[in-house]
Amino acid sequence: MRDLKATILSIGDELALGQTVDTNTAWLAAQLAQRGISAPMHLTIADDRPAIAEAFRHAAERADLLIATGGLGPTEDDLTRFALADVLGVELTCDDTAVAQIRDFFERRGRQMIDRNRVQAMCPAGATMLRNDHGTAPGIHLRISDADVYCLPGVPREMKAMFADHILPALPQQQGRVILTRKINTFGEGESNVAERLGEKLLARDRNPLVGTTVSDGIVSIRIRSEYATPDEAQQQLDQTTAAIRDALGPLVFGEDEQNLAQVVGNLLAERRQTIVTAESCTGGLLGKLLTDAEGASEFFLGAFTTYANAMKHAVLGVPESMLAEHGAVSEPVAQAMAEGALRISGADHAISTTGIAGPTGGTADKPVGTVYMAIASRNEQTQVHRHVFAGPRDVVRERTANMTLNQLRLRLISA
Amino acid sequence: MRDLKATILSIGDELALGQTVDTNTAWLAAQLAQRGISAPMHLTIADDRPAIAEAFRHAAERADLLIATGGLGPTEDDLTRFALADVLGVELTCDDTAVAQIRDFFERRGRQMIDRNRVQAMCPAGATMLRNDHGTAPGIHLRISDADVYCLPGVPREMKAMFADHILPALPQQQGRVILTRKINTFGEGESNVAERLGEKLLARDRNPLVGTTVSDGIVSIRIRSEYATPDEAQQQLDQTTAAIRDALGPLVFGEDEQNLAQVVGNLLAERRQTIVTAESCTGGLLGKLLTDAEGASEFFLGAFTTYANAMKHAVLGVPESMLAEHGAVSEPVAQAMAEGALRISGADHAISTTGIAGPTGGTADKPVGTVYMAIASRNEQTQVHRHVFAGPRDVVRERTANMTLNQLRLRLISA
Repeated sequence: MRDLKATILSIGDELALGQTVDTNTAWLAAQLAQRGISAPMHLTIADDRPAIAEAFRHAAERADLLIATGGLGPTEDDLTRFALADVLGVELTCDDTAVAQIRDFFERRGRQMIDRNRVQAMCPAGATMLRNDHGTAPGIHLRISDADVYCLPGVPREMKAMFADHILPALPQQQGRVILTRKINTFGEGESNVAERLGEKLLARDRNPLVGTTVSDGIVSIRIRSEYATPDEAQQQLDQTTAAIRDALGPLVFGEDEQNLAQVVGNLLAERRQTIVTAESCTGGLLGKLLTDAEGASEFFLGAFTTYANAMKHAVLGVPESMLAEHGAVSEPVAQAMAEGALRISGADHAISTTGIAGPTGGTADKPVGTVYMAIASRNEQTQVHRHVFAGPRDVVRERTANMTLNQLRLRLISA
Repeated sequence: MRDLKATILSIGDELALGQTVDTNTAWLAAQLAQRGISAPMHLTIADDRPAIAEAFRHAAERADLLIATGGLGPTEDDLTRFALADVLGVELTCDDTAVAQIRDFFERRGRQMIDRNRVQAMCPAGATMLRNDHGTAPGIHLRISDADVYCLPGVPREMKAMFADHILPALPQQQGRVILTRKINTFGEGESNVAERLGEKLLARDRNPLVGTTVSDGIVSIRIRSEYATPDEAQQQLDQTTAAIRDALGPLVFGEDEQNLAQVVGNLLAERRQTIVTAESCTGGLLGKLLTDAEGASEFFLGAFTTYANAMKHAVLGVPESMLAEHGAVSEPVAQAMAEGALRISGADHAISTTGIAGPTGGTADKPVGTVYMAIASRNEQTQVHRHVFAGPRDVVRERTANMTLNQLRLRLISA
């Protein structure tokens, strides 16, 4: 059996005009990759009926499986079903079961189906509607030439549920070929230095498992793609390559796949039955948000004091007014006093604090925009304060500050 | 002069495999759209030299302007320059100016350029290197057939700066055609109800300005695209359509374009010279993070108390232990006590609080997963508490809670 090849299409003016970032395609590509199906090309198309039809025809000639998202809504700019009818050279017909499902969806929410939603039950003759239990837009399943084509709504939550309900069970079992992928995430060095540590042999392009690097938000990830005849072999080779990479990079590695620094720190705290509190100024609550995104947050996260105004730093965390006046809010002693104040009030095992100039204004000669002080206070340990000057706009400074603070706490936890 | 048409290509296994969400393409598409250049097709290609070459050839036949991102890094999986040499049928040559710039980039950071970075100065014969002041990867500018082709690094910050430095000044001035776009953002009703309020006439597909709707994170946006011969006419028509939409939707509309609820609430507070503090449980600091993302946050945002643990709700916000024991942390009286406690301690004009079960576990029969209580306490006004049951996973419940809380405060502020 030859390799199954997929193409992912995303449809919508909001995507073509750049008003919305397309997260559906990456999610679908990852789902397919996990199952050994490669999707080496993705296409985005504006809400234009002939262009959508042309894209379906083009993709159907080059792939075995097409998954399209978007353009199935109730409004006039939702053109996917019309373009499909054009490709097949057929009319749209009303699917009574789909009408009943849409009406039922509204009624369960105590609302009436309005006439406009009726178009969502229109199906190109010969195609099949796919039930949507999570919204009003049923999907459409059809064949174009030799390609199996699935159209799903663009709302991510509905799209994901319908992929699981309708596409996953229908994916052919791969024979003679298994692709496993893994990402090893590092923090603390740039991409070329990480590549230097890995060495030519690990990064050779004809290697299997194949190893590559990517940077995102200051995190350098090493991607591994292991392709073998059996799952056991693919897994074994993936694990061997992972071990070699971890060996080369040591404590730069903080996690794998979707693990982020907050989750890793959370796991380390939970293992030690320790708790954390944050005292944030320039990060504005981002550290707390990241820590409560982590699984099991209630085990280790007590809370966050976001003391943005100086009066709050004094009133809530007990930072002396004289210290704020003498050193300024963005200073080593204030970072330390914030962390130690938060530790004292909360009774947590660790407190991390941030105070800095995220920009775009507020910099001075000795404290330029991007200057941040980060402190870690722990019971029975000396408080550490780090200063760093970050480059980039406000949101980048805040993200990097949060990641660097979490990474410093991670290094303290694993070295203790 | 005929319409200028662009295609955006993004290159990388991390994109093709779905390990990274591509934000560059949307940013570039928006930049082009603002300048009247449509990019009705976007392509994503894996790190595969022949496939990248084929994509460049294919796109160059169909567009006047190609902008590609990615594949210019120092590692073996960075193949864009090699694919371009294949397309042109030329060799790569070393650009000494680019070598000097890369060495200089490292030296300014107190680091040594390593040999690996030398490949980043290799340029297909006949092409031009584009200086990168923000990283180690110069861009490449060339022509393929009649298309003008720009290749930029994939790191978003570098890509954006290089777009501004090199592409923006070279974009031809549009003649005889101006496209202006706007997004009107609403909160509180579903897409089909919003469409119903707008009516058939506003949503007709042959209308100019063209009007469409999109949903993202519970926010229904109405997109307008106004295309006319002169900037004045395009602007006037855009404004007229905007007025008609605002008229039809009333207080559902909270803002335009990239304005989010936090920014709008921040502006309303700043206009009134009022301040806000948050008391967060299930949102874990997200409200504070959103409010400090807003411009001018230091004018209106005092801080956030993220009291995740019950002990913190009592110790920090003064929520009575007996109330927590009797009603549970997720309850109307606790939401009210959190907001009123935060208001009292901080001296702010308004306090908003959230307490809920974001999931995935923790639900009961009368408080299922997704149950959230949101309170608004204001000086000299009665505290309001809303209860809502949100559908969806943890991060969706948290996002929606934050948006609904901000929207309720917005409605209180505009009705006062």
